[in-house]
Amino acid sequence: MKSSTKISNAVIRRLPRYRRILEELKNKDVERISSSELGALTGYTASQIRQDFNNFGGFGQQGYGYNVQSLFTQIGLILGLDREYGMVIVGCGNLGQAIANYATYYKKGFKITAMFDVNPKLIGISINDIEVQDYELLDGYLRNNPIDIGIICTTKNSAQDVANKLTAGKVKGIWNFAPADIEVGEDIVLENVHLSDSLNALAYYISNRDQQ
Amino acid sequence: MKSSTKISNAVIRRLPRYRRILEELKNKDVERISSSELGALTGYTASQIRQDFNNFGGFGQQGYGYNVQSLFTQIGLILGLDREYGMVIVGCGNLGQAIANYATYYKKGFKITAMFDVNPKLIGISINDIEVQDYELLDGYLRNNPIDIGIICTTKNSAQDVANKLTAGKVKGIWNFAPADIEVGEDIVLENVHLSDSLNALAYYISNRDQQ
Repeated sequence: MKSSTKISNAVIRRLPRYRRILEELKNKDVERISSSELGALTGYTASQIRQDFNNFGGFGQQGYGYNVQSLFTQIGLILGLDREYGMVIVGCGNLGQAIANYATYYKKGFKITAMFDVNPKLIGISINDIEVQDYELLDGYLRNNPIDIGIICTTKNSAQDVANKLTAGKVKGIWNFAPADIEVGEDIVLENVHLSDSLNALAYYISNRDQQ
Repeated sequence: MKSSTKISNAVIRRLPRYRRILEELKNKDVERISSSELGALTGYTASQIRQDFNNFGGFGQQGYGYNVQSLFTQIGLILGLDREYGMVIVGCGNLGQAIANYATYYKKGFKITAMFDVNPKLIGISINDIEVQDYELLDGYLRNNPIDIGIICTTKNSAQDVANKLTAGKVKGIWNFAPADIEVGEDIVLENVHLSDSLNALAYYISNRDQQ
């Protein structure tokens, strides 16, 4: 395994969805599932699903389908979910607090260890037992605490400065929610959540539907 | 135009990104741009870009490139951004408030007209001059006010119930932030923002980088 540089981004993007749906099946005590059933649940075709899983060596068995628990575990391993990721949040307004709640309640394996802001009204308050610290302290914090993921929840204008500080502090990845195209070095993994792109696509489909 | 049912989802998904980058160029008074320059800014290849724009009849001119203002306007028209979309938010915790701020400050053409929650502590407060109403009033509000987009910012467990009420209230699209796979009728456009999929993909790329 893990010669995964050959696996296309499109496949990697589908794996979390498979895993999410397998988790729900697992919670409903479903033990096995065929590629067509999985297709109905994910919206992908059965042949797409078989192809995707073949990238990693199959998992399935002709006439039996896939073992839900085992497939769930395998996909988790491929996604690197067999370890814990330390995360800091920069920007603790509504969005930062929402992400903190989300990570705390829904994402086992992803642990927020510190939160930072420039706003004196936010510095010192506690969010899920983590005290918001002055943004000035971010550099020092990262020097003393190796962190996997920096989460940017600031305004557009501050995002690049935060990204630079996170980079200097040697985070491995940045999860960016600011509506800005930030630039980072090649050794940093950047994942943008562009709400604008999502909303504009929604508008397109609505406006196209109207005209059909 | 607008026989766009033939345009692939992948192309539609790239258009908002083109438009975002063209807007930044426009703000910097850039008048024209070649497909290779646009490639460097978007991360797509020049040939991909030319192919994408050919779907809509070109826009470009050999040896001149693209006119930034005109391309920006054209893509906006294709995306249906030449009109206003009325939106309601259901769930006014941190996430709902963050989305309300985002739409108000960053998204011209998308107007939040009402917000709803079940929490007595939130009902009655104002967010960007919009008063949070009791969720019980959602049905009646939608009956009297045709709304384009319903935004779900509730917990996982409430999401389907909200989606059902939005559907009964004849919204055209749902923008779902709850970590749940909700089901809607075929005449409703559903756009999910699955934070989990995004974070899991980030973890994959980090964990794979570590092992190279």
